[in-house]
Amino acid sequence: VRFFWLLALVFFLMVPNLNAQNPEDLISDETYECLVCHESLHPGIVESWRQSRHYQITPGEAMAVEGLGLKVSNPDVPMALRDNNVGCAECHLLRPDAHDGTYEHNGYRVHTVVSPEDCATCHSVEREQYSHNVMAHAYGNLVYNPLYMDLTETINGVPVRKGDRIETKPQDDMTMAESCLYCHGTKLEVTGTEVRDTDFGTMEFPKLAGWPNQGSGRINLDGSMGSCSACHTRHQFSMAEARKPYTCKECHDGPDVPAYKVYSTSKHGVIFSAKQKDWNFTNTPWVIGQDFTAPTCATCHISLTTDTDGTVVAERTHALTPRLPWRIFGLVYAHPQPKSPDTSIIRNDDGLPLPTNLDGTFAGGFLIDQEEMEVRKQRMQSTCMSCHSQQWVDGHWERMENTIRTTNEATLTSTKLLAEIWEKGYAKGLPQGESVFDEFIEKVWSDIWLLHCNSIRFTSAMAGGGDYGVFADGRYVLNRRVTELKDWLRTQDMIHEKKK
Amino acid sequence: VRFFWLLALVFFLMVPNLNAQNPEDLISDETYECLVCHESLHPGIVESWRQSRHYQITPGEAMAVEGLGLKVSNPDVPMALRDNNVGCAECHLLRPDAHDGTYEHNGYRVHTVVSPEDCATCHSVEREQYSHNVMAHAYGNLVYNPLYMDLTETINGVPVRKGDRIETKPQDDMTMAESCLYCHGTKLEVTGTEVRDTDFGTMEFPKLAGWPNQGSGRINLDGSMGSCSACHTRHQFSMAEARKPYTCKECHDGPDVPAYKVYSTSKHGVIFSAKQKDWNFTNTPWVIGQDFTAPTCATCHISLTTDTDGTVVAERTHALTPRLPWRIFGLVYAHPQPKSPDTSIIRNDDGLPLPTNLDGTFAGGFLIDQEEMEVRKQRMQSTCMSCHSQQWVDGHWERMENTIRTTNEATLTSTKLLAEIWEKGYAKGLPQGESVFDEFIEKVWSDIWLLHCNSIRFTSAMAGGGDYGVFADGRYVLNRRVTELKDWLRTQDMIHEKKK
Amino acid sequence: VRFFWLLALVFFLMVPNLNAQNPEDLISDETYECLVCHESLHPGIVESWRQSRHYQITPGEAMAVEGLGLKVSNPDVPMALRDNNVGCAECHLLRPDAHDGTYEHNGYRVHTVVSPEDCATCHSVEREQYSHNVMAHAYGNLVYNPLYMDLTETINGVPVRKGDRIETKPQDDMTMAESCLYCHGTKLEVTGTEVRDTDFGTMEFPKLAGWPNQGSGRINLDGSMGSCSACHTRHQFSMAEARKPYTCKECHDGPDVPAYKVYSTSKHGVIFSAKQKDWNFTNTPWVIGQDFTAPTCATCHISLTTDTDGTVVAERTHALTPRLPWRIFGLVYAHPQPKSPDTSIIRNDDGLPLPTNLDGTFAGGFLIDQEEMEVRKQRMQSTCMSCHSQQWVDGHWERMENTIRTTNEATLTSTKLLAEIWEKGYAKGLPQGESVFDEFIEKVWSDIWLLHCNSIRFTSAMAGGGDYGVFADGRYVLNRRVTELKDWLRTQDMIHEKKK
Repeated sequence: VRFFWLLALVFFLMVPNLNAQNPEDLISDETYECLVCHESLHPGIVESWRQSRHYQITPGEAMAVEGLGLKVSNPDVPMALRDNNVGCAECHLLRPDAHDGTYEHNGYRVHTVVSPEDCATCHSVEREQYSHNVMAHAYGNLVYNPLYMDLTETINGVPVRKGDRIETKPQDDMTMAESCLYCHGTKLEVTGTEVRDTDFGTMEFPKLAGWPNQGSGRINLDGSMGSCSACHTRHQFSMAEARKPYTCKECHDGPDVPAYKVYSTSKHGVIFSAKQKDWNFTNTPWVIGQDFTAPTCATCHISLTTDTDGTVVAERTHALTPRLPWRIFGLVYAHPQPKSPDTSIIRNDDGLPLPTNLDGTFAGGFLIDQEEMEVRKQRMQSTCMSCHSQQWVDGHWERMENTIRTTNEATLTSTKLLAEIWEKGYAKGLPQGESVFDEFIEKVWSDIWLLHCNSIRFTSAMAGGGDYGVFADGRYVLNRRVTELKDWLRTQDMIHEKKK
Repeated sequence: VRFFWLLALVFFLMVPNLNAQNPEDLISDETYECLVCHESLHPGIVESWRQSRHYQITPGEAMAVEGLGLKVSNPDVPMALRDNNVGCAECHLLRPDAHDGTYEHNGYRVHTVVSPEDCATCHSVEREQYSHNVMAHAYGNLVYNPLYMDLTETINGVPVRKGDRIETKPQDDMTMAESCLYCHGTKLEVTGTEVRDTDFGTMEFPKLAGWPNQGSGRINLDGSMGSCSACHTRHQFSMAEARKPYTCKECHDGPDVPAYKVYSTSKHGVIFSAKQKDWNFTNTPWVIGQDFTAPTCATCHISLTTDTDGTVVAERTHALTPRLPWRIFGLVYAHPQPKSPDTSIIRNDDGLPLPTNLDGTFAGGFLIDQEEMEVRKQRMQSTCMSCHSQQWVDGHWERMENTIRTTNEATLTSTKLLAEIWEKGYAKGLPQGESVFDEFIEKVWSDIWLLHCNSIRFTSAMAGGGDYGVFADGRYVLNRRVTELKDWLRTQDMIHEKKK
Repeated sequence: VRFFWLLALVFFLMVPNLNAQNPEDLISDETYECLVCHESLHPGIVESWRQSRHYQITPGEAMAVEGLGLKVSNPDVPMALRDNNVGCAECHLLRPDAHDGTYEHNGYRVHTVVSPEDCATCHSVEREQYSHNVMAHAYGNLVYNPLYMDLTETINGVPVRKGDRIETKPQDDMTMAESCLYCHGTKLEVTGTEVRDTDFGTMEFPKLAGWPNQGSGRINLDGSMGSCSACHTRHQFSMAEARKPYTCKECHDGPDVPAYKVYSTSKHGVIFSAKQKDWNFTNTPWVIGQDFTAPTCATCHISLTTDTDGTVVAERTHALTPRLPWRIFGLVYAHPQPKSPDTSIIRNDDGLPLPTNLDGTFAGGFLIDQEEMEVRKQRMQSTCMSCHSQQWVDGHWERMENTIRTTNEATLTSTKLLAEIWEKGYAKGLPQGESVFDEFIEKVWSDIWLLHCNSIRFTSAMAGGGDYGVFADGRYVLNRRVTELKDWLRTQDMIHEKKK
């Protein structure tokens, strides 16, 4: 019996410190009131929130973290928010006048869509960085570019039969919202109010166009751009999740941007898959070697990392561009990164809204120069050097830049072939002032640079994923498509010859 | 020394209760006799079984579970089966007269293929539900439909050169068994007996045609349809495994039904990938928020789920259809779910064995009506509402139904183009009374609705997987294929014009 | 307070035995000197190494392992290496005279590229086995085969416009190194020396062509073939990693060799995905049933496995071929395995460097005979039998050999069609003495056997992955491509007819 008590005591002492705070006690009165109903209405998101850091500690405590582990980057978080954990009310009641569609709800002025400006209340540095990210501008970069919108029309428009012709109905908003804008972000708008019978009586809510959406460049009801939950999913808003490559996969799985597929086939991805269960995805800063032994997407592109001595290897950046000299996503050709994250302002030498000219040269003035490219290359390579020698890294980089050149060259060849087709009138494009994307042979051309050259470049950039550079949408397929262009042209030539 | 003994005691008390039963003691004499030889012959499946719940407890104990955790749904399990765990003999000796091919084996009457009727001995409710599942009828739904069999001939038939023509040899049984029927299920038949020299002497076994197979609609030797091990793999028969999306991937990975690929790219799939290692896949009922924070396939389509208060969110269904208003898998168009899981009985208005007419309207009388669709929609949405507001869910659903309309419209346009091709005699199909699937341009048409419209609809239904709705077999590719149809027709027109 | 001390004692006794060696104490003086600089320069690989078995124990201790767990297969490891763990110096200073490009570095003669001959110092048996592996010969098997090099030219060569023609620039070394040779391995060569300013002063290093590379058949600077780190990634060199299918995925993800994709969709892969987190990937030998309940790539092809009694089920083989009767990777047709791992010596009956003739018969004398095939089949099936009955395995095998026949037949039909196209002069190939891979219609033909027939056969061989045998690059697509060949030929016929 004595031993039983002894054992009980041992277990008692083994449980976490009883003086530790219970997060339930940190909940504000306002959030508590939300939970009274919403806990049973939406148990999934409430429990998800209970697994979050937002639930575990208060902003005041988070602000007290010293050194590189500090996550609340705003030193001036309002006093009123410092002593409760971050629950429903702390975000959905913030800045009520700033948001269109804020509504009265049981005595509170609630807004449905939390924006990066709300998050900036605590995470001001990250929000500022993200505003320089091309992804924050993803809505406008697509929608305000007439050439890209011509492309989306030929993707989302529905082909219909009119008499003996096929026409394309203009793309509708709902299709656009679940295709291109799913990732780019929709433009949210309040279109009215709707009265709904709920378990708790009749209630009135704003009606929102473009909702739901968590796209990276969403236009919010306070006019801000972006959605933090694109990568830090509601309502856990987890850093660990964003550090895993699955997060990026949601929008970068290909074949136009096959980043995830290439990564998971690369040596880095293979190591991640085999060992991730023993890695630490929550440590801040993220210690190379100790927390992980191969990079994920975030390691190279975003995260604050240090070596085992605590020396910073890379600074955190939610802008991404500081580490990116090249834009390997070809439009139409791969090119140096644009200077501004707002790419809708770019015009090439022919006045087209493209960062490159049709002959493959770069749109003057809108792209970063050699010197800036060199600075960014050094920043990126500092991560590589944590596991690789300079010679290894140089060898890799030289191959990548060679591949940028050769894929741009293949794109040029294809573009010339298409120009000949247009000239001969076999299809109607630029010379005829018509869409360059709406005919079969034009789509073969867009496949070449949009799917195949991009797949090859992503593979090259990640130094692996062999087949994504060869048989899986890579060089083997690229060359097949180029011969398809040639073959189609030759057949048309033969048919038209005999006409004469 | 005293401390050593104290420590030993602590550990002693920490091991599981010594009074707990040892599953080895629950093994029946019959199963014990099986194990004497088969444990060394097939260690993989024997150890797999040892990890199963079948091994851990007896049906009698399982029947004593109260409330939603009850898994043995038959209240009348035969007394003789209640006190041993469920081993080899308990299944393979059941109902020996019901199975064709039951054979004498060391004094026992054994059958190789365990059927859902055997499983129903304990799991009667699940078996009954599954008999209403279209997957249980998957063999007949394919094989008894002459139009679908025409399609399979053009898939499985081997092209051979005869003189200067290409003909297609009729598909053979072995090919059919490892292609379409791998998932649909084969028809098992006893074709004779075979004598084999084994380590334990000469033995006689029945020879089975269609074996091995674990397809969801397998025709068993007792005449029943289905295979529980399609999803609950032998010999662990695990609920946890079936709750993971990999199980569904085996037959739903695309591009005709790209459910897994779309899921793994959707927000739900991203969360699953990032967090599953901390989730509980064995708890019954499955508690939303507590056991998991994003749905898998099973969550939305099959599982019994509750909220954290224990209130049922969704009832378990092995039929699946109770939660499915639409059938987004187009044949040729997406359509309301069929009334009967036996779809081979359906005839459209032209007498073709299809649930839709060639103009996209629905085959009258065979499909569920609006009212039933509404009921099923509500059932499905109750799961969504565990994490999403009504407005979110409504917005999503409206987009999905819009996509059903637009993809059906694109299919109609393509079908009209093919009809013109047939009329002009450039290819031979319906008007000529020939196969609609065996020529190149017909395959372009079937790609459009079978691969691309389906990919788009699965992406829409899962509210994500952006690129599967766009560049990865989605709208971008759909429109390319439609222009390919047009382009082919135009080229043929030009060639035939000049003939005149 | 007394209880506190008691508890402290309990914890104290629970930590691992304090007498256990600290691996840091096993580091040699030479390796210690490397670490002084390289630990901070490359923390990733140093920490990775600290997670390795090479760090944990010494060769001397590893040699003392008795029975099947022995990993150091050389009984004569030099005495000088036995008492330190295996660190930087133990590998990079080995056999300095054997390696081209060994350089002076802080008083040591270092070589950058560690070769299988270095690894053989401890792992002699594995190295010997691997020398018989076709993968060790992968560089020469590609580069010394003029027909395959013609194929790589049409893949890696860059199409350029010359006047009104399209020509292909010869493939460059950097492209070749990151496409085909990424997996096949590059040929490393010292091209000079380079002086570099480092944090530790000016230093001179050899410049290497073909670097970096970890391809399976890399030609090393000591003339040896292969790279152990292709599968056992530097610097952990883990057996557990190589046992996971991700490792194989790096080079076998398709569509030409879609082994990983097929596996992950097969029943075996589904079980692996669902349960791997509870499996033991480090145990040696690998115990079927106890350590895992479904095979990975390594289980069937490489690993030493036993049943739960310790009886060997399969012997370890780094050659792989002992368990492989067929080569299902068609060149142009599937065929019995070559006798020699050096396949560049093979000539078919027409003198072409192919293991099969153009009519599908096998290149006489270079392939293993029926008897050897039977022996290898038995070896492979002994693994199957750990979970499946002989009847199951026979049924599977019969289907696979049927599929080898039918896919070879489809390839023959396609080849005859292409021959007719060549004869009629619509394209230029063998009869004209020109490339058989460089025109559009020839690429349709190569797709048929290289992508589609291979996908079908991999699916068949893994008894699953239904759609990779049907809609996902399988039979559905195969038949579409064959009709595309026919359709193209018919269109050309029509055009040329009217010419006359």
